[in-house]
Amino acid sequence: MSELIVWTYDWVPEGPRGFVRDIRLRWACEEAGFDYCVRTVPFGERGADHLARQPFGQVPFLSDGVIEIFKSGAGLLHLARKSEKLMPSDPVGEAHTLQWTIAALNSIEMVSVPWWYLEVTGAKDNHLTNWLESRLDHIERILKQRDWLVADRFTVADLLMADVLRVAKVRSFGDRPATEAYVARITARPSFRKAHADQVAHFAAADDRNAAIGLDE
Amino acid sequence: MSELIVWTYDWVPEGPRGFVRDIRLRWACEEAGFDYCVRTVPFGERGADHLARQPFGQVPFLSDGVIEIFKSGAGLLHLARKSEKLMPSDPVGEAHTLQWTIAALNSIEMVSVPWWYLEVTGAKDNHLTNWLESRLDHIERILKQRDWLVADRFTVADLLMADVLRVAKVRSFGDRPATEAYVARITARPSFRKAHADQVAHFAAADDRNAAIGLDE
Repeated sequence: MSELIVWTYDWVPEGPRGFVRDIRLRWACEEAGFDYCVRTVPFGERGADHLARQPFGQVPFLSDGVIEIFKSGAGLLHLARKSEKLMPSDPVGEAHTLQWTIAALNSIEMVSVPWWYLEVTGAKDNHLTNWLESRLDHIERILKQRDWLVADRFTVADLLMADVLRVAKVRSFGDRPATEAYVARITARPSFRKAHADQVAHFAAADDRNAAIGLDE
Repeated sequence: MSELIVWTYDWVPEGPRGFVRDIRLRWACEEAGFDYCVRTVPFGERGADHLARQPFGQVPFLSDGVIEIFKSGAGLLHLARKSEKLMPSDPVGEAHTLQWTIAALNSIEMVSVPWWYLEVTGAKDNHLTNWLESRLDHIERILKQRDWLVADRFTVADLLMADVLRVAKVRSFGDRPATEAYVARITARPSFRKAHADQVAHFAAADDRNAAIGLDE
């Protein structure tokens, strides 16, 4: 039996498919060659059971034997310490992977997700747009200087940064060629493609099951 | 000579004093009893030198011998692995400290900082307010059930969560008594008070130096 379990929803609407954050943990497991399986919690009903395991009613969370851990960024850092394929094991490489993983979450996603949220709710705000542009300019400057964020090699920091930049659907990517090339290159990795295809298939299978038992979607 | 160096600005205006994020690293060093010193980079001029050490032109960053690490959350997790006073050393305690540290940054601060930013720029947005309220409700539910986020004891996850909640200046704290009590209790710790006083004194001393040499502030 696989010790590593990636928990996600049993179903989501079409819009977020390919973007649900379990993809980050699937992807890391694929990169490292870990044996893992995927299990589900109901999308429609997030009761006490779910909140006890993910206090904000979200997914993913990860089971690793007796360890349960929520937040995809925390799961990535937890997995990274199990395989050199995800993070160098020397103290400097580990510290830099940690800082760039946190930067993806707290320097970029902290701006890009609220920006995206206001865009989709029709409350577009110029302050947030300018703030996001400024953060993306910093990333572009860095990616002009190097191919990887840490130690001249792929780490979970690149995995997360590429996923954050991919999800942001940020405008003006065309004006930031280094960022565009970085995201394209990293999401062309076979492990990302497999994780993406697996997630899309997982949710599509739920459609099929629901149709078979006559449930509305 | 102290190996641990917390880097911050040489000066900031009065508004952010007591809130600049070097306080998180000072606080952690005080809790753990680490020998550390504070050094500065110019607030007014953030050139290539600064960007090479903190790619977004912010503070703090931490030097620990050959290791340099930016992002306060990353610095906290780095420090936490050096002392049981900041994080339990068993794998479950470590994983839970990691998840709650990331949750403070990515579940709360990702909403509270953009919310605060729109408030101060006069672009108050109801979507963000509702989103923040919802996240704070989750935290209130959790803090009604327990005093600490991890392992029934203080960890860097509490340090960071309390600092995030303190900085957010979120309204309706009065309606969330468990959260209010948590923040009050944790910021009453002697280590927080010392870190806070030291930061305020650090920036006030810069005022005095500037006045002595006739610089406008």
